[in-house]
Amino acid sequence: RNKGRLLVKCPDQPGIVSAISLYLGEHDANIIESNQYTTDPENGIFFLRMEFECPNLQEKRKKLEKQFLEVAYKFSMEWEINFLYDVKKAAIFVSKELHCLRELLLEWQSGDLMTDVVLVVSNHEECREIVESFNIPFYYIPANKDIRKEVEAKQLQLLKDYEVDLIVLARYMQILTPEFVRAHQAQIINIHHSFLPAFVGANPHKRAFERGVKLIGATAHYVTNDLDEGPIIEQDIIRVDHRDTVEDLKKKGRSVERSVLARGVKWAIEDRLIVHENKTIVL
Amino acid sequence: RNKGRLLVKCPDQPGIVSAISLYLGEHDANIIESNQYTTDPENGIFFLRMEFECPNLQEKRKKLEKQFLEVAYKFSMEWEINFLYDVKKAAIFVSKELHCLRELLLEWQSGDLMTDVVLVVSNHEECREIVESFNIPFYYIPANKDIRKEVEAKQLQLLKDYEVDLIVLARYMQILTPEFVRAHQAQIINIHHSFLPAFVGANPHKRAFERGVKLIGATAHYVTNDLDEGPIIEQDIIRVDHRDTVEDLKKKGRSVERSVLARGVKWAIEDRLIVHENKTIVL
Amino acid sequence: RNKGRLLVKCPDQPGIVSAISLYLGEHDANIIESNQYTTDPENGIFFLRMEFECPNLQEKRKKLEKQFLEVAYKFSMEWEINFLYDVKKAAIFVSKELHCLRELLLEWQSGDLMTDVVLVVSNHEECREIVESFNIPFYYIPANKDIRKEVEAKQLQLLKDYEVDLIVLARYMQILTPEFVRAHQAQIINIHHSFLPAFVGANPHKRAFERGVKLIGATAHYVTNDLDEGPIIEQDIIRVDHRDTVEDLKKKGRSVERSVLARGVKWAIEDRLIVHENKTIVL
Amino acid sequence: RNKGRLLVKCPDQPGIVSAISLYLGEHDANIIESNQYTTDPENGIFFLRMEFECPNLQEKRKKLEKQFLEVAYKFSMEWEINFLYDVKKAAIFVSKELHCLRELLLEWQSGDLMTDVVLVVSNHEECREIVESFNIPFYYIPANKDIRKEVEAKQLQLLKDYEVDLIVLARYMQILTPEFVRAHQAQIINIHHSFLPAFVGANPHKRAFERGVKLIGATAHYVTNDLDEGPIIEQDIIRVDHRDTVEDLKKKGRSVERSVLARGVKWAIEDRLIVHENKTIVL
Repeated sequence: RNKGRLLVKCPDQPGIVSAISLYLGEHDANIIESNQYTTDPENGIFFLRMEFECPNLQEKRKKLEKQFLEVAYKFSMEWEINFLYDVKKAAIFVSKELHCLRELLLEWQSGDLMTDVVLVVSNHEECREIVESFNIPFYYIPANKDIRKEVEAKQLQLLKDYEVDLIVLARYMQILTPEFVRAHQAQIINIHHSFLPAFVGANPHKRAFERGVKLIGATAHYVTNDLDEGPIIEQDIIRVDHRDTVEDLKKKGRSVERSVLARGVKWAIEDRLIVHENKTIVL
Repeated sequence: RNKGRLLVKCPDQPGIVSAISLYLGEHDANIIESNQYTTDPENGIFFLRMEFECPNLQEKRKKLEKQFLEVAYKFSMEWEINFLYDVKKAAIFVSKELHCLRELLLEWQSGDLMTDVVLVVSNHEECREIVESFNIPFYYIPANKDIRKEVEAKQLQLLKDYEVDLIVLARYMQILTPEFVRAHQAQIINIHHSFLPAFVGANPHKRAFERGVKLIGATAHYVTNDLDEGPIIEQDIIRVDHRDTVEDLKKKGRSVERSVLARGVKWAIEDRLIVHENKTIVL
Repeated sequence: RNKGRLLVKCPDQPGIVSAISLYLGEHDANIIESNQYTTDPENGIFFLRMEFECPNLQEKRKKLEKQFLEVAYKFSMEWEINFLYDVKKAAIFVSKELHCLRELLLEWQSGDLMTDVVLVVSNHEECREIVESFNIPFYYIPANKDIRKEVEAKQLQLLKDYEVDLIVLARYMQILTPEFVRAHQAQIINIHHSFLPAFVGANPHKRAFERGVKLIGATAHYVTNDLDEGPIIEQDIIRVDHRDTVEDLKKKGRSVERSVLARGVKWAIEDRLIVHENKTIVL
Repeated sequence: RNKGRLLVKCPDQPGIVSAISLYLGEHDANIIESNQYTTDPENGIFFLRMEFECPNLQEKRKKLEKQFLEVAYKFSMEWEINFLYDVKKAAIFVSKELHCLRELLLEWQSGDLMTDVVLVVSNHEECREIVESFNIPFYYIPANKDIRKEVEAKQLQLLKDYEVDLIVLARYMQILTPEFVRAHQAQIINIHHSFLPAFVGANPHKRAFERGVKLIGATAHYVTNDLDEGPIIEQDIIRVDHRDTVEDLKKKGRSVERSVLARGVKWAIEDRLIVHENKTIVL
């Protein structure tokens, strides 16, 4: 594929877009899609995502990256150029509830999730069969809070061995250590089974039932060291009513959890997400 | 109109439905719509809403009510029979934000809100013109927390004079006293501008903006003396994104607030709502 | 399980509900859920679905069925009593597009689809592996319009052998003969990849693209001999925009097709669907 | 206001974005929002909407327009620059159903519709009172197909006198002549009470009822001389079920018609709509 994506974050000022488009023009790159956002017309932060097509992209890669340094320097940019032939590598972490894992595997098998799912890690054996039926390596690593360090050491080694870009917590019910999280800023996506900030923490469906809400939801967010407080990527809801028991809420919740997580993961793979402070910019 | 509605709440036991349908049959009433719900098949609470048509209903009213006492006694029912020719009377309380008031007035004018809006009360003059253009009595009662008692005394007198059945707080920004609320159990509907229990309290849009949510919502609920904790009647949400400022959230929020409140009020008018503990059963 | 469901269709008249509730009371059956509908308060058709719980249901089955004959006769009812221990048996027919099949299998595996999927039939080999990984018998029956009769003879034999109650066309791209359809009235559910009646027939996504619609949809319906004209069970839509190519519409369409079909199939399994003329009553 | 909007349509080729951003930079204009779209990376048509802020815009207007001619010429652009201080003028045409008119007036009064509603035209007197209560000139022009030419002559004169930019058919039940339509290409927005292309033509709710659909919708579209076939701007749907009569569908339809039309009109006012062949690009 001759497609690339440029992501930029810098202080807003006149001339950024023309500098970038001139730069891309000089390399015969054609802009396919372009999205930008400024936090504030006055002294704001500027964000850009450009998807471009460029003949012989693979050969030009080094040159492209090198020559962008000049533009980046001039505007004090944080930036990255991603090349679509370089498919992102994802790891999925899961515990006993398998609906999110299954959704991701099906979407991936249908070709609707353009990533390499390079491994699945679980603290339970429940999903081994389904994972292996997709010919994906499965690692069973029992976990509990007493052996957290050893567990994470194994996981970190695997993530390194497989050169993982993105970690998806598809209902993985273990807390990660601050060290683990810090080493993967804006790389770990979790699905929380409520529309945050409602029902932060455990048992959201039970608490939703007790409160008598008429909607339940799900939230895909980046993991930070504040539980359920990381930047929100995507949310959605489903209607419930007084007839629904806690079990019914869980069942209905599953369908929204899996679609919300799948959408969040797709946007991450398509380089649509930029984290800014405690929010996501979705371009 | 020869239509009536029977609402029942009682301990569940065999024979309730057949006793009620026999009773209605004896009075030549035909069941048009029937909804029931039991909290639990074992020793649960049973709820029923039946809409029926009965020739010469107005003349039979007394007899119908009297003879139901026997059924009600046998099953220890809380119950009411409402007669559709007896249109419910509603009062709307509003402050400066008029979108919910306008929605209700338009729906009412279109004939989509089958109630008598008998008066509008406000602590501001902003809505006088629009209210009076609909030929509805408008009462301007300035309010603040220091004169709460006097204000409520005036309001209570008006509610009594107009024989009001339902009080709609259409963005009325004053807290009601426990006495006022206690005197109108399950009669006061408020619209809160968030999907509760997220963002309980003041300034939900500002806090939603700061948290970076991807959905904002609105909640219609019965007012109790726990702020924003009363039984939820209806909720809905609307998508927002990183581009939306606090002002944009308010603007988007308005459209969902007004439709959620209008739906909640309609259900109340149609006798679809039964409060049970801190929840609503919507039949 | 001691649960049963009673489905009734008959001319509306006073006394039906009380007769049925008396009958259930006599057998110590407790009504758990009850839904009814009348097409018209005057001389309409009455529909009822009652879910009940009854101790020792299995032993009482014969007696229950026999004694209902009297009630049924009195009110000229079409009726059935279904017993939940008698799980419905479903066959899935599929061609090359597997997203709907996968959704059904996953829901079934999660326990969210309370049926026995007893076989999968396809005119292609693509899905053999996935079906067999779920330990479900797979039958490959090549098909085209010249050999329709022979193909259907094989299929009919399988449906008989497996005692199938429900046939789900999960993107099965072959037309069924009138004989086949007639033999399975209100037993064959198809998913059409548009919000019918828009884009009846082939290539709905291409035509949706050409028309420039802003929503695409999917429709689950019972199969009759009028192509795409059978009673609609469920529909839903998803937003699209000018950026979406025909391929994008297909991709987005998949997610709505699979959820609409899954919902329709669930309602069929839960005995919620009654066909009346060319419509479905969903109770 | 120092804000302007540039709309461009031209054959795609490298260098367009950089030429435009250089041009804006030279006039000290800061890009606030930018959206673009290309029908095809190879020889496609390029569309752009840029919102910019520019000090002393009003004084620079002539110069800005003149100097853009050079850029426009180089890339064979169709283009326009709109200045936000130059508020668009809208006329609303309506017949007897007033819900869409009311929605637009309320949104306009809340400041959520940034246009001047300069007149309302109706072939009925029903809405005179409400229109005049908003202090908007109301013109009653009785209409039927026999006097179409005279009616349109009067209307055209009014549109000219009031310098109208946008005509909104808010349930105006008269057909316009080809001459009228031709004179207002991409200037007339109609609301159709179905999700087109389903139920083109008259009585969509009756036909939806007969077909037994589970969703009804509404479509805002530009008017062309092919009835209900013009470019679609926006669509939305609402759930219905077997209980809904034709009257219920009309009632439910109203709420979706008014919100769809309001959204479509807002996009037109914000210069977000570009018509291309028989589609709208919404930027």
